[in-house]
Amino acid sequence: MKAVFDYLKTNQPRFVDELCELLHFPSVSAQPQHTPDVHACANWLAEHCRQIGLGAEVCPTRGHPIVLARTPRREGTRPHFLVYGHYDVQPPEPFELWTSPPFEPVIRGRDLVARGSADNKGQHFAHLKAVEAYLKTGTGLPCDLTFVLEGEEETGSASLTPFLRARRRELRCDGVVISDTGMPAKNLPALTYALRGIASLEITLRGPSRDLHSGLFGGSVENPAMALCQLLARMRDARGRITVPGFYDDVAPLSAAERKQLRRLPGTEEGYRRFLGVPKLYGEKGYTSTERTTARPTFEINGLTGGYQGEGGKTIVPAWARAKITMRLVAGQQPDKILRATTAWLKHLCPPTVRIEISPEHGAAPYLVDPAGAKVQAALRALKTAFHHEPVLIREGGSIPIVSDFKRILGADTLLLGLSLPDDNIHSPNEKFDLDCFAAGQRMSALLWQELAKTV
Amino acid sequence: MKAVFDYLKTNQPRFVDELCELLHFPSVSAQPQHTPDVHACANWLAEHCRQIGLGAEVCPTRGHPIVLARTPRREGTRPHFLVYGHYDVQPPEPFELWTSPPFEPVIRGRDLVARGSADNKGQHFAHLKAVEAYLKTGTGLPCDLTFVLEGEEETGSASLTPFLRARRRELRCDGVVISDTGMPAKNLPALTYALRGIASLEITLRGPSRDLHSGLFGGSVENPAMALCQLLARMRDARGRITVPGFYDDVAPLSAAERKQLRRLPGTEEGYRRFLGVPKLYGEKGYTSTERTTARPTFEINGLTGGYQGEGGKTIVPAWARAKITMRLVAGQQPDKILRATTAWLKHLCPPTVRIEISPEHGAAPYLVDPAGAKVQAALRALKTAFHHEPVLIREGGSIPIVSDFKRILGADTLLLGLSLPDDNIHSPNEKFDLDCFAAGQRMSALLWQELAKTV
Repeated sequence: MKAVFDYLKTNQPRFVDELCELLHFPSVSAQPQHTPDVHACANWLAEHCRQIGLGAEVCPTRGHPIVLARTPRREGTRPHFLVYGHYDVQPPEPFELWTSPPFEPVIRGRDLVARGSADNKGQHFAHLKAVEAYLKTGTGLPCDLTFVLEGEEETGSASLTPFLRARRRELRCDGVVISDTGMPAKNLPALTYALRGIASLEITLRGPSRDLHSGLFGGSVENPAMALCQLLARMRDARGRITVPGFYDDVAPLSAAERKQLRRLPGTEEGYRRFLGVPKLYGEKGYTSTERTTARPTFEINGLTGGYQGEGGKTIVPAWARAKITMRLVAGQQPDKILRATTAWLKHLCPPTVRIEISPEHGAAPYLVDPAGAKVQAALRALKTAFHHEPVLIREGGSIPIVSDFKRILGADTLLLGLSLPDDNIHSPNEKFDLDCFAAGQRMSALLWQELAKTV
Repeated sequence: MKAVFDYLKTNQPRFVDELCELLHFPSVSAQPQHTPDVHACANWLAEHCRQIGLGAEVCPTRGHPIVLARTPRREGTRPHFLVYGHYDVQPPEPFELWTSPPFEPVIRGRDLVARGSADNKGQHFAHLKAVEAYLKTGTGLPCDLTFVLEGEEETGSASLTPFLRARRRELRCDGVVISDTGMPAKNLPALTYALRGIASLEITLRGPSRDLHSGLFGGSVENPAMALCQLLARMRDARGRITVPGFYDDVAPLSAAERKQLRRLPGTEEGYRRFLGVPKLYGEKGYTSTERTTARPTFEINGLTGGYQGEGGKTIVPAWARAKITMRLVAGQQPDKILRATTAWLKHLCPPTVRIEISPEHGAAPYLVDPAGAKVQAALRALKTAFHHEPVLIREGGSIPIVSDFKRILGADTLLLGLSLPDDNIHSPNEKFDLDCFAAGQRMSALLWQELAKTV
């Protein structure tokens, strides 16, 4: 492994130059005018994979292409791991808030500033450089690797699921590694062992057949906006808990060990309050903000609509009112079961003076790997050696639906080994990636295959 | 008076022709392209007033002109009454729903179909024709009359208040007569003795300084949309009563006699429910729908806004949520006092996790004249004789702010003697005015001055 580490150390300047080349492509998947750039980026990436010794193909999809790259296969069966990343980026707008053009990478101190630097080009490029080090130094890889680099992550990964299905034999693997999450600080490398799931629904209450004059009719008919407020108000109790019967039945409780891990994270409640700009924090009684956002489920109103929205007033009893709801779910909870229970409870609470319509949307299952499991422990060892710091086990509150796809379609668990810092401005102007995280990420990746191969 | 009634009877066909002439003007106050038509209509009306023997002027305002017409004044002081009407009309759109062009009046049976026929050209024209009958037959009017015909009623009467202020000496009077409300049926002439007032406010709850990712932050911060729902939900109790302390303190209760009068109105609760298209009627316990809409105050959400309103979903904790509220007030309640009490109650109930902003808008006082008072009784006699049916005393649930202006600026009570039937399609396509109501309205007006003059 010394040759690998020496190679990585020696070639950092070139790696940064190459990453800058990759960052030059405005591969904005959401903007049709950038479709040629997305394709050019995919082609560059495939060509680069070939140069470092991988077999690479640009696989067309109904949307943007997926770059599939494989280490040279040997005779016999070896452990097989998949590295997922995405080469598409968020739109750069608003341009005027960037201190340098988003697709002209610049280095300031240890920051490499460009759209896509942290999310996600820099992160998956670190994995590619680790493999390059193995291949160029002739060091034997202890496993087969396949890179799946998609171009539609920022627009919902619509082509990925059919791709995984179509190629599921070839992609069947012992685990998926994704570096697309965060680490709390430069001296706190992290493994994300839990994500929240999601279940969404839209509630519409319909009252009178048209908006009514509130003077002529007000008082004799239920106001659907008021009925909606009274209905939604009852979904949460005074302790901040969701009132849907059975909602918490399957929630995996936090262990004392996990709570201890989470308390290692930097930051104070008061600092967090100021960061959010709220007069007072709020949440389920008995939990810290970190626990509330990562280990406890929520019922969130994302949008509320009813009646007149414009300037000034309009004296009506609106015909209908609507709420868009998402619930974040935690390990143990199943989206379908939660949607059924919530729908039944809403219908039970709805007064007979309005008609209720509920459209359940699809959900995504929560994700949890056993922090004490062999693969997680293997990854923690790689992180510790690469970063020279004790890694932390974290949960994230968001949902990454593709993680469920990897499990469902390929039967594989995912290890989330994020290299992005909290101030990397992901999805915002002046996105950057820390070059120390880039280098440490390469070392971590190189070590990871050694550690992971032992667990299979 | 025989000469007056004979004149009215003989000249009906000509009156209808003249009204059709007036209805030809597309005097749509809300549409700038019709400003010349509004002015032409005002000029025609003033000229017509002069032809029937009134002194008339077209008074410019910052908006559309007001036509002021006066009966010839005699020596000495006599009772003075003011007749208010408006010559502007609602926009005719959507044209495709009209069975004949809105500004080409046609007669079908007893219906005169045209935009503005009932609201309000036909109604104030009936009063002009009654005066014409007095003047052309040389019958002595027992009082002085002034017609105030404005051109901005459908856009909020912005110029009327300054006009009344500027001319308040000349316009000081013993009462105002307005025919711009409704009567329940052709055989139920009506005097509206009560209107509801109004008080409006806008409530904004602000939480985090920007929309937050509901995955990363949800659960640790109050959702302003949920806080708004829980706040508004508490404004109404299980009996359908508003919870603001003191809200009902000044409400004038309905007398047994009034409730008996209101029960004379046609229609059933089931028919009303079907008309509104609701699964079940709703309102304050212990009252009928008619009582709820006319004699009881309300707290109505006119608009509800927060977070993401578009298609699909957006997983955010919105930064703010807002509600537009109007309260309808009844006799005894004062808009300012109600706004103060409501604002205080909202602030009291608001949780410390969000910031509340309340913008109170102006209100309009409720209106109530004593149904047993001399002027009301005089008007009822005129109605009964003119329509050959026992008139009914009704309340309306809407608010007519100019009625407060007449009281405040001119010190005069208003008599609301509406000639419009429930199926006149006011503000809708195929507006019509019943020619029997037109003729009976003229007789009522002729009698009214006799009856009213006695009361002064």
